[in-house]
Amino acid sequence: MDKDGIEQSRTEIEPGQHSGSASRRAFLKRGAAVAGAAASAGLAQGAAAQGLAGQPWERVYGAPFNGYGQPSRFEQPVMRYIGKPYGDLAPGSGAALSPIEALEGTITPSGLHNNRSHSGTPDIDPKQHQLLLHGLVARPLKFSMEALWSYPMTTRIHFLECSGNSNRNLAPQPAQVPAGALHGNMACSEWTGVPLRVLLEEAGILPQAKWLLAEGADSSHMSRSIPIEKALDDALIALYQNGERLRPEQGYPVRLLLPGFEGNMNVKWLRRLKAIETPTHTKDETSKYTDLQPDGRALQFTFELGVKSVITKPSSTMKLPRTGFYEISGLAWSGAGRIRRVEVSTDGGATWADAALTGEQHPKAFVRFRFPWEWTGKEAVLQSRATDEKGQIQPPRKAWLAQYSPGNTYHNHSIVSWSVGADGSVKNVYV
Amino acid sequence: MDKDGIEQSRTEIEPGQHSGSASRRAFLKRGAAVAGAAASAGLAQGAAAQGLAGQPWERVYGAPFNGYGQPSRFEQPVMRYIGKPYGDLAPGSGAALSPIEALEGTITPSGLHNNRSHSGTPDIDPKQHQLLLHGLVARPLKFSMEALWSYPMTTRIHFLECSGNSNRNLAPQPAQVPAGALHGNMACSEWTGVPLRVLLEEAGILPQAKWLLAEGADSSHMSRSIPIEKALDDALIALYQNGERLRPEQGYPVRLLLPGFEGNMNVKWLRRLKAIETPTHTKDETSKYTDLQPDGRALQFTFELGVKSVITKPSSTMKLPRTGFYEISGLAWSGAGRIRRVEVSTDGGATWADAALTGEQHPKAFVRFRFPWEWTGKEAVLQSRATDEKGQIQPPRKAWLAQYSPGNTYHNHSIVSWSVGADGSVKNVYV
Repeated sequence: MDKDGIEQSRTEIEPGQHSGSASRRAFLKRGAAVAGAAASAGLAQGAAAQGLAGQPWERVYGAPFNGYGQPSRFEQPVMRYIGKPYGDLAPGSGAALSPIEALEGTITPSGLHNNRSHSGTPDIDPKQHQLLLHGLVARPLKFSMEALWSYPMTTRIHFLECSGNSNRNLAPQPAQVPAGALHGNMACSEWTGVPLRVLLEEAGILPQAKWLLAEGADSSHMSRSIPIEKALDDALIALYQNGERLRPEQGYPVRLLLPGFEGNMNVKWLRRLKAIETPTHTKDETSKYTDLQPDGRALQFTFELGVKSVITKPSSTMKLPRTGFYEISGLAWSGAGRIRRVEVSTDGGATWADAALTGEQHPKAFVRFRFPWEWTGKEAVLQSRATDEKGQIQPPRKAWLAQYSPGNTYHNHSIVSWSVGADGSVKNVYV
Repeated sequence: MDKDGIEQSRTEIEPGQHSGSASRRAFLKRGAAVAGAAASAGLAQGAAAQGLAGQPWERVYGAPFNGYGQPSRFEQPVMRYIGKPYGDLAPGSGAALSPIEALEGTITPSGLHNNRSHSGTPDIDPKQHQLLLHGLVARPLKFSMEALWSYPMTTRIHFLECSGNSNRNLAPQPAQVPAGALHGNMACSEWTGVPLRVLLEEAGILPQAKWLLAEGADSSHMSRSIPIEKALDDALIALYQNGERLRPEQGYPVRLLLPGFEGNMNVKWLRRLKAIETPTHTKDETSKYTDLQPDGRALQFTFELGVKSVITKPSSTMKLPRTGFYEISGLAWSGAGRIRRVEVSTDGGATWADAALTGEQHPKAFVRFRFPWEWTGKEAVLQSRATDEKGQIQPPRKAWLAQYSPGNTYHNHSIVSWSVGADGSVKNVYV
């Protein structure tokens, strides 16, 4: 008898293995075969058939409460991929990429948010930090964080993506590293803050102000020029990330958030905004974050990120353990607005079918797409292709490359391809 | 000259203090006075008028990258409120409540998610843990976590609330503690998992199965009876929380999620589901989590949580530093579906006006409401009242109390009242 007073089941117990029954209708609609899948479940499992073994953790009193929780110790391998181009001489210059292949849903946990920084993460005392709004305004203003917290706020879910994301896929040979190490220089959070428009109206922005210089309080004073139209549109002075105050790596105590614009412009540790007539051509908008054209000239100010998607499961370096049902899962996003559609191909782009979408109600935010797939054991090439609400379609790799000089390293939003070998191994390939 | 090549502004710089300009239209619509608000901004600030002081963190190289990020050290005071009714004899029995007064938006950061547990948090090895599905099924199944991860998944945002939440407000005198210590036994996350219906269909649930016994793998083997209708509706076998694997305190590696049902039924560390004909009357559905009626009988099986809201800012133990504009901000939710409306009163319920809502597209999830308020320095009583899509309205405290015996301690979803004194101090009051 078990504790609920009902005789313990003596039935032979089978290991669960998805039979495809739930997705059978979806498969049949697509005309794909599922006959093999239903047969793949139902293997009897001898010794364990009596029920569940009592595990050690069921016999000891568990861990006490704590003030701030952490992931399980068994999840310690799930961490960001750190790239330090200057090594330990500058251990905070470079980027930490999100392990997107280990994540699910649309929100990135704050501890695994991507982090691009130029001179490390400053340790800012919010009581001492101030935000200055000056330049071409009727009345320059300076805000303590306490003052900012008394302003009207709004909450929205938005992605951030470094415009250098996916640049490892511009190397001559495809790197065999996890998806996050290739495409994880991005994340998606719920942000809460003060609409920048509110502060600009209070300061009395002057008609001749066409740009804002946004500057961070890190020791590199990272800065960018922001078009005033964006500042007056959906820009936020963000104070909260996924419910709590910003994490230091994401700009604590205050950052600029420019939904859909390249990550670098969303200046972290924001210390001032200066209203000006023309862009200031800071280093991060001249020597960097520009698009090298075939004729050698650099195109400046590609602010809005292109429509993009990536399959996160299965993805490179994974191995499919068996034939049968898999759910292909991935992320799609666009700097232009909502994702309208994601198509998946399992034959290297010869045929495409629509994936199911979660989270598509939020513009400029991650959408999770899912697609049922029966792996028969043959070689396959998995791809996803996103379309946004403006009708923009994620381009094939070759078409995207053809627009630029081979030296270009920014704004790669081309289709990502994973090959599946006959042994189930998944590899990064250029198609 | 500063780094952008433009002469440093010498204009006198004013401290930002919200003038009400942005919300003036909203105020005028409501007919509230704003004349004083516009005058409250614009105070010149002598010594600091030259611009921004160079702060120490701008002069030193920042912190290096790390694999998993943490909050700022300046946010260490933001932590959960731990209640241990058995003290250090049972340091994991009780609850850790979310500091809702320090949070914003609708997502609760996983580190600050509420945690109700009976015998501490077990340290479960996901490679060893299994989920058994047995009882009145055609084919009992046992799932390893690896097997579960290959099933089709779905992602949804849902709140969880302990049915004992807000029971401190049933004490004879209102406790003067922060809002989270009163009403923080709840949280809201993005959950990803396998629809329970998929697993029940695969096991072949039999027609005579009307309930499921759900049992946890903690040392208390916490268990509840779940109506089969809910299991076949929107129940999830949840594996991911806010993008990453479940936190140990929320049931790692797998929990039951029953959107809108009292927290305790969302069994954590789920080890088995047994299909049965009648409820098993476990201790957590007989001696606990029942509603004591005026005649002394206990009403069982109040599963769906009532429509509810709470103002988080300003809230008890806070102090308004000055008269002028404030944004009242709070959370609303309902076990029955979407929040349709939240009204706010600043005069103890004499008059009400609609608040603005964020997040209302998600059923059984937190909605953030915001309401502009001009504090003139007079005493005030702030309240919020939520209405859900089924037309249910959050009840006044007295009306709610009248339904039960004074000894009842569950399902308190009555209106919360905060008084504001002439000195700006905010107190918990019973109205």
